[in-house]
Amino acid sequence: MSRRIPASTIRRLSHYLRSLEDIEGEGRETVSSEELADRGQTTAAQVRKDLSHFGSFGKRGLGYRVDELRVRLLEILGVDRVWKVALIGAGRIGSALFEYPAFESRGYECVAIVDADPEKIGAMWGALRIRPPEEIESLIGSLGIELFILAVPAQAAQQITDRAVGAGIKGILNFAPIRLKVPSHVAVEDVNLVMQLEALSFAITQRG
Amino acid sequence: MSRRIPASTIRRLSHYLRSLEDIEGEGRETVSSEELADRGQTTAAQVRKDLSHFGSFGKRGLGYRVDELRVRLLEILGVDRVWKVALIGAGRIGSALFEYPAFESRGYECVAIVDADPEKIGAMWGALRIRPPEEIESLIGSLGIELFILAVPAQAAQQITDRAVGAGIKGILNFAPIRLKVPSHVAVEDVNLVMQLEALSFAITQRG
Repeated sequence: MSRRIPASTIRRLSHYLRSLEDIEGEGRETVSSEELADRGQTTAAQVRKDLSHFGSFGKRGLGYRVDELRVRLLEILGVDRVWKVALIGAGRIGSALFEYPAFESRGYECVAIVDADPEKIGAMWGALRIRPPEEIESLIGSLGIELFILAVPAQAAQQITDRAVGAGIKGILNFAPIRLKVPSHVAVEDVNLVMQLEALSFAITQRG
Repeated sequence: MSRRIPASTIRRLSHYLRSLEDIEGEGRETVSSEELADRGQTTAAQVRKDLSHFGSFGKRGLGYRVDELRVRLLEILGVDRVWKVALIGAGRIGSALFEYPAFESRGYECVAIVDADPEKIGAMWGALRIRPPEEIESLIGSLGIELFILAVPAQAAQQITDRAVGAGIKGILNFAPIRLKVPSHVAVEDVNLVMQLEALSFAITQRG
């Protein structure tokens, strides 16, 4: 099924989930596709189309039940459970990510930190001891790690990825500025802040 | 023109630029659309289609001249010049971003840092003194700031954005987990790492 769902749809589902949480926090029990559209800066038709990929929700004229749709979106996005995550790379970006509270609140639990720097290996970050790259396979296996947050230099990224894939990793949030080569069953999301700045300067330049 | 160019195309243009820089570093003068496709994990037809938005490049059977296409992509992406950037929010993410060398290498020059915390205001980061939010308008005007990197808590983000827009900001790289409301002439790129993790867990869940 995932093959047919565009990335923009998935992103909107995440937005709808946040809106539903806000609306539930306001103590309300139903919401219209118009209001979800308004909060997500899209159209009511788009909301209905996005949700239609995953079954039938809501009643014409009555809208959606907030708790029901919220729980269903948690399931669809796979965040109705805990995901074990390893942080690979204990540099500046790794450090900022490690202390980022939003990850854990959504069920992404960092259970291991890996770095190649001998001066960092063995250091404690919170309750976790920084491990050397040689332990990647055993950490994945023994801790049930499914996701990597990869914050290492470009030249190290593919080699670490190959080892993680061999050991059964399922998804990678990639901060290294390269396109990782992975088999089709492994999901990759690239975070490339320079490219996002380029998208801004592109938009401004073409507009001007 | 920017209205008609999809975000995925812009991202591929950034990838082509990186590939061209690598190829130029290898001392080569021409490249085929097939090779650009291969390095960018797309198809040759897609490469030709992406570039066709911006004019006529390359010769059938001869490929593209590397230096010519590289310079043209710099122009198209608007990175053939320096962009003055302000970092708004001197927290953990702001700190990691400030020391991120890739920004400056691409012409994004941080010329101001702003934070609301009285304990941070006045501190020096490199050659820059952290300024209070009250100075946002005067900083934009006096320093010619066009881009904001917005790394502040969600509840502060819209108010700061409104002031920046009023003072003439043109683009915002937004780390706050909200959808900023801006007029259509202001470009926004959202960085939402939790949503990118959700895209991973979605892909793995739907696949499983």
